[in-house]
Amino acid sequence: MEAIRFSQNTLYLLDQTRLPTEEVWRSYRDYRPVAEAIRTMVVRGAPAIGCAAAYAMALAAMEFEGKPDYAEHMAQAERVLADSRPTAVNLFWALERMRPLWQAGAGSERLCRAAVAIHQEDAAMCRAMGEYGAALIPDHARILTHCNAGALATGGYGTALGVVRAAFAQGKVEMVYCDETRPLLQGARLTAYELTADGIPATLITDNMAGALMAQGKVDCVVVGCDRMAANGDFANKIGTYSVAVLAKHHNIPFYTALPSSTVDVSLPDGSGIVIEQRSPEEVLSFQGVQTGPAGVQVWNPAFDVTPHDLLSGIITEKGVLRPPFDAALAGLFEQ
Amino acid sequence: MEAIRFSQNTLYLLDQTRLPTEEVWRSYRDYRPVAEAIRTMVVRGAPAIGCAAAYAMALAAMEFEGKPDYAEHMAQAERVLADSRPTAVNLFWALERMRPLWQAGAGSERLCRAAVAIHQEDAAMCRAMGEYGAALIPDHARILTHCNAGALATGGYGTALGVVRAAFAQGKVEMVYCDETRPLLQGARLTAYELTADGIPATLITDNMAGALMAQGKVDCVVVGCDRMAANGDFANKIGTYSVAVLAKHHNIPFYTALPSSTVDVSLPDGSGIVIEQRSPEEVLSFQGVQTGPAGVQVWNPAFDVTPHDLLSGIITEKGVLRPPFDAALAGLFEQ
Repeated sequence: MEAIRFSQNTLYLLDQTRLPTEEVWRSYRDYRPVAEAIRTMVVRGAPAIGCAAAYAMALAAMEFEGKPDYAEHMAQAERVLADSRPTAVNLFWALERMRPLWQAGAGSERLCRAAVAIHQEDAAMCRAMGEYGAALIPDHARILTHCNAGALATGGYGTALGVVRAAFAQGKVEMVYCDETRPLLQGARLTAYELTADGIPATLITDNMAGALMAQGKVDCVVVGCDRMAANGDFANKIGTYSVAVLAKHHNIPFYTALPSSTVDVSLPDGSGIVIEQRSPEEVLSFQGVQTGPAGVQVWNPAFDVTPHDLLSGIITEKGVLRPPFDAALAGLFEQ
Repeated sequence: MEAIRFSQNTLYLLDQTRLPTEEVWRSYRDYRPVAEAIRTMVVRGAPAIGCAAAYAMALAAMEFEGKPDYAEHMAQAERVLADSRPTAVNLFWALERMRPLWQAGAGSERLCRAAVAIHQEDAAMCRAMGEYGAALIPDHARILTHCNAGALATGGYGTALGVVRAAFAQGKVEMVYCDETRPLLQGARLTAYELTADGIPATLITDNMAGALMAQGKVDCVVVGCDRMAANGDFANKIGTYSVAVLAKHHNIPFYTALPSSTVDVSLPDGSGIVIEQRSPEEVLSFQGVQTGPAGVQVWNPAFDVTPHDLLSGIITEKGVLRPPFDAALAGLFEQ
């Protein structure tokens, strides 16, 4: 399963707002609608956003190469893409990785190669995370996950679902419980879709069932993705991750997050500095277009929450599994 | 606001599956469709189900009075109603309260009076709970509630929302946060509707936001309803209540449940004996006919969960607020 393709100077994105009922691929030859696709979550998931942004810079290079004000146009394209969504750090990481190329005058061919490399590296990192993470999964495991940190959220294979896929290949997965993940239902629409498509046993639950499921002894571990991690291991992920972490702690269930090292923002000492995107009230007031709330009610709709590092049992990266103290382990990750 | 009316030998139920977009009243002169209305949640909420069942027995009496096998018909009507939903004990309590009447040969006029008395008593108990509970609410309170334990769930005024209403009348409520309460969204559709209709400030959140809201210091106390309480204070309430209770404990936030004493099932020593209704997978896989999950995924859909008494700060009843140890306090409730 994949959600991003690049071929013949065109970026193709699987429209994730239409899953699971329709598989619609959208094509892009202009960076501007790619920024819009990130904003509207046609493409979502921190690593996938990074890949899409890198390809969008390659599209910008195609548009502007040969013009006298190439660098200015490219800087403008970067700003438009950077403004699309604020929380996932991979977006900014990918833009920063492309920047020295166009600043040095490299054109579209070089930027396309760089974007493809980011994409391929991301998929390879997911495979590595999968192998490291699978070692943490017990036999006959019942794994709970929240939102979608799968092939659809990455360059391929997935972070949290990469761990699930690798553990399943090793015969260790009895059941994957998918929180549906309101308001946008990425767990129901994307994770349950990915898992059933791959023949991995999946059970869908509403977000408020996770605690009761744990209390009944039906969850052996929790694995989630990550949108931005601070230097001490505090991390932002889809709203509801924090609640799951507290519930896992209460039930003494191991709680892991899986992420490529590009998701770590070493400029932030802790999670208090992570900007949390607030999204439209309409997402909460309706459900797939059907109105749920009454007129006149207020809405709180943060897209992410921050889970403090002390609720984490381990951090699964492409370089291995980090254990507490996470500040030292994360620092070591970048010294390697 | 009210959801149950009885007039000229006809029971009227406000169809709660259609709120908040439509206010549709349905009329009943036959007990059988009332049982179906309970099953399909046209009427829901433990105390309201009890009231509806009592009126349904009065309708049965109208149908069968004067027939030679009156008691057999009435026993059959009671069985049909008892089979409608398994968890809320008020249903069985109301049927048991009606039983000696028809067993002694009383006809529809007497059963109507008894049903009206149950209904009026329930509303009066909610007012009493409101007064006792309001004393627990601090000034400028930000209160979180889950599901709907309001006027719509009772004979009127509400249990948890009765407490909110009384505290609001005393000028103590700054904000009520409403968990939307998937899968059937009673928080969004009913609680937010009731509160905004009464001019009480309400903010709607998805269920998975409660933890992040507490972590930001935005919740001063939690008040929920109850569908059945065991003799030790363990209690069943809408799925997700247990998660909220664990989250409240983690954040040292007082957590209360409000219930009439008819919700206490003294035959159960603890919560392990409470039968939990499992409902259709379709409720999780779709909303109002719009599909969310993929074909082939499994679903877990318990309608309730059990919160152990040690997560409770207090039990608000029509006779006063009970504090730990709850087993002794609950025993005392029935000795009064």
